[in-house]
Amino acid sequence: MKTDIQIAQEACMLPIKEVAAKIGMTEDDLELYGKYKAKISDDFIDKCKDNKDAKLVLVTAINPTPAGEGKTTVSIGLTQGLCRLGRKAIVALREPSLGPCFGIKGGAAGGGYSQVVPMEDLNLHFTGDFHAITSANNLLAAMLDNHMHQGNALHIDPKRIVWKRCIDMNDRALRNIVIGMGARADGVVREDHFIITVASEIMAILCLADDMADLKDRLGKIIVAYDYDNNPVTADDLHATGAMAALLKDAIKPNLVQTLENTPAIVHGGPFANIAHGCNSVRATKTAMKMADIVVTEAGFGADLGAEKFLDIKCRLAGLKPDAIVIVATVRALKYNGGVPKDQLSEENMEALRKGIANLDKHIENMHKYNVPVVVTLNSFITDTEEEYDFIRKHCEELGCEFALSKVWAEGGRGGEELAQKVLSTLENKPSEYKPLYEDELSLEEKIEKVAKEIYGAGSVSYSAAAKKQLARITELGFGSFPVCMAKTQYSLSDNARLLGRPEGFEVNVREVYVNAGAGFVVVLLGTVLTMPGLPRVPAAENVDYDIEAGRITGLF
Amino acid sequence: MKTDIQIAQEACMLPIKEVAAKIGMTEDDLELYGKYKAKISDDFIDKCKDNKDAKLVLVTAINPTPAGEGKTTVSIGLTQGLCRLGRKAIVALREPSLGPCFGIKGGAAGGGYSQVVPMEDLNLHFTGDFHAITSANNLLAAMLDNHMHQGNALHIDPKRIVWKRCIDMNDRALRNIVIGMGARADGVVREDHFIITVASEIMAILCLADDMADLKDRLGKIIVAYDYDNNPVTADDLHATGAMAALLKDAIKPNLVQTLENTPAIVHGGPFANIAHGCNSVRATKTAMKMADIVVTEAGFGADLGAEKFLDIKCRLAGLKPDAIVIVATVRALKYNGGVPKDQLSEENMEALRKGIANLDKHIENMHKYNVPVVVTLNSFITDTEEEYDFIRKHCEELGCEFALSKVWAEGGRGGEELAQKVLSTLENKPSEYKPLYEDELSLEEKIEKVAKEIYGAGSVSYSAAAKKQLARITELGFGSFPVCMAKTQYSLSDNARLLGRPEGFEVNVREVYVNAGAGFVVVLLGTVLTMPGLPRVPAAENVDYDIEAGRITGLF
Repeated sequence: MKTDIQIAQEACMLPIKEVAAKIGMTEDDLELYGKYKAKISDDFIDKCKDNKDAKLVLVTAINPTPAGEGKTTVSIGLTQGLCRLGRKAIVALREPSLGPCFGIKGGAAGGGYSQVVPMEDLNLHFTGDFHAITSANNLLAAMLDNHMHQGNALHIDPKRIVWKRCIDMNDRALRNIVIGMGARADGVVREDHFIITVASEIMAILCLADDMADLKDRLGKIIVAYDYDNNPVTADDLHATGAMAALLKDAIKPNLVQTLENTPAIVHGGPFANIAHGCNSVRATKTAMKMADIVVTEAGFGADLGAEKFLDIKCRLAGLKPDAIVIVATVRALKYNGGVPKDQLSEENMEALRKGIANLDKHIENMHKYNVPVVVTLNSFITDTEEEYDFIRKHCEELGCEFALSKVWAEGGRGGEELAQKVLSTLENKPSEYKPLYEDELSLEEKIEKVAKEIYGAGSVSYSAAAKKQLARITELGFGSFPVCMAKTQYSLSDNARLLGRPEGFEVNVREVYVNAGAGFVVVLLGTVLTMPGLPRVPAAENVDYDIEAGRITGLF
Repeated sequence: MKTDIQIAQEACMLPIKEVAAKIGMTEDDLELYGKYKAKISDDFIDKCKDNKDAKLVLVTAINPTPAGEGKTTVSIGLTQGLCRLGRKAIVALREPSLGPCFGIKGGAAGGGYSQVVPMEDLNLHFTGDFHAITSANNLLAAMLDNHMHQGNALHIDPKRIVWKRCIDMNDRALRNIVIGMGARADGVVREDHFIITVASEIMAILCLADDMADLKDRLGKIIVAYDYDNNPVTADDLHATGAMAALLKDAIKPNLVQTLENTPAIVHGGPFANIAHGCNSVRATKTAMKMADIVVTEAGFGADLGAEKFLDIKCRLAGLKPDAIVIVATVRALKYNGGVPKDQLSEENMEALRKGIANLDKHIENMHKYNVPVVVTLNSFITDTEEEYDFIRKHCEELGCEFALSKVWAEGGRGGEELAQKVLSTLENKPSEYKPLYEDELSLEEKIEKVAKEIYGAGSVSYSAAAKKQLARITELGFGSFPVCMAKTQYSLSDNARLLGRPEGFEVNVREVYVNAGAGFVVVLLGTVLTMPGLPRVPAAENVDYDIEAGRITGLF
């Protein structure tokens, strides 16, 4: 069987100019990065601002399992399928991060015959957006520490610094560090922490900013620390905003690439799906919506995290109205949710399926709470049986959802046509009356409880003493109207990774709360969240190579 | 008076395709990065490998002073002047680093009417080469710390780790840090240090590598640490070579931009001029030499550091033979060398000039030791007087050098024509018989003494106990045939920054010696070298901004 990188490298890519021409773009509308990647110019975005908006389809999933679901693969395959049916469709995705690419997870540009290409570039530096974010993040950190070193006129309390340095790498040794050691000339000693770049608030800001003016405004509001009187100190206070904006002037422009079937794909931004909102950039989504009739996008993790934040944060803040939601599941993952161990997922097990499908049910119910019609799809796998398919199909239809099988990994767009048909009929026949789960006016506590009880299925919410204090202070500072960005385990609807299926009546505990004043949301941590992954015993990096003879990268997956 | 960025932004840039077309390149030979930047494809480099080599001219300078010399500005102005005289000339320069750009020094793309453009892009992310180097450097570090965390099968001695993390930022707080703190899962505790990216051995390697095969070979040889038996542990031992090479696959390709007069410029690589060799990449220089009749290049700091390493490291390792050397001086800098304080340099002072010119004399003598003809140029300044010019002109002619005034800052190529004429007549009439200062076969100590005595003018060399031990061990490990890469203050011919003019008979002290096995040289530290600069009280970053109305960056200088 061919690997993803082999399939990707055998693809007949078109020059990106030609892909762009298919949707009416000229070379002047592009800033080329090599022959197969381009940024979309500000002029073009301006030029098409009065175009009619496309229909917006969100692809989300049940809770992730070790069996894998393939949300990105389905997003790409669905888009390829729509294009095969003659529709003008664009897929809008997140950019992969270098960290997981060299760690355990590998690349993130789809799989099989539903990939975006050039796969190696996408998974490595791409157009440099993440590097620009890393630079802006670390310039702010350097200016902060320099301010303290040069006399600390702003009276920053070194124990209340909340800004962290970042790096696009899985590097556990940088989680907890002490900086500023050495002589007096070597800065002020303090504890510090590196996070992975996708966890930087600047990544969230870039993905929520409408344009450069909005970006600058948000950057300036970033709270980097609190002073000795516990008042916020911002990036504006450090005079860092302009230089950060300069560093991000190209990163804010959406990137155009193509699918394996030469249809346009926009890949831009990639915030963490736990402490941030886990969606591609607003600018990319909105631009795609001006260029196509249907835009397919996705959000990180399962629907309880990714879709909830897409709907309650991204759509709310950006004024987007999704028209349909596709929930991806697999037979194997549903059986896993029904209690089958990982090594027995290849065997038919109707009882486990009947039990595990409760996880899917809850996500369908949740999405219906936003008044958006739902289509369920199974990403097919060779060990699945017809009986399993029939059961799930019937079950979904009883719940009022369209259902389709996706064979996009093996067959590309052809394997996505059935799903594309169902999505089209849903768009035509089931109007979306999207509304977010909660209003801005609710208190932060009320917002947290609404998400915990209505989306997760919790019976109650408890708060640590610190969280209570933080919520009061954040409200006092005027951020009470922000949406909440919930961070919890992705593996369960609850905050306990081991509770599979559809847990109910559990208590969730709010451990810590802080505000991202630039991004415009309040982060609520249920449990511990790792913002800097580590490398495994044998990192994926050990298999990556550059083949001199062939002149290409090998071993990326 | 207009600032550099104003002049640069008012320039009529040609699309880089058109600049390339002037020297016979097609769009297929380029990988575009926006409209005004491109990488030169491997295929093109391969295609022109049998072309005749251009003449190679090195631009160097007297010892730097606070008055400023303008080596890059003269390099660009000279090239513009050569092009105005109908010659096919290309300037090959180093890429600027983000650190100094946001620190005290500002950008580094020439000045006035002798600049390479787009100036903002060059000074910020450009084509991402430095970011790629940073990633490769830090992937190696992460894999090293992960190896220790996962059981340390290679028996790496945590006290003998020599690989450092890097960042392209002036950030003194990262000079001395402790990493791996926290819980067991958070890695192994040890002291670590960040260096600025230009100081990474990977930068030196990228700049010395002939092609991807050579790059991989060199990356694999990097010594990251020594084990408990004091044997080297390399990047190959950590299985990190392939992934690093993959990260650098585009960074190794030379970048094509243009001067303010739309002539081609190649800007690629930028190693530190103290602990590394301070020259643009070999691949860029060699490619430029296949595309033009005359290539103008430069090397960091004064001729005692930059030119010496260009001649003894870069030319030796790459098989290059320079045809002429231009030494840049200014009247102000010569007076400063003659003892005039910084605030009195605007007044004519023939006595100080007569005294200070000894610094220039020594550099001329030094360059003649390599059997390469020398042209001296004065980068003119408004306070200079005719009498000062006449004195210097006559003095140079007595020493057998051509002399020309450069008015390139104010007049661009037109102001570089006089210098261009002198360079042309030198190339035609004075054959170069370049030979390096020392042979590979000399011992490391003999090489050090040759540079110290013959180039610096030292009377003797002393060694710290540690340095003696290190030299013995490095020789024992088989690296005795490497050239030496001397790191000392750039402000004096000696290792004491306060000794201006032409000091003689002094003793230099070798403090520390280590090998860069991948780059292929032995670094010899005379005194302390800062490999991570700090930000000043008011960082240049505070003035940088993005003007929303105008849609462009302001305040870069």
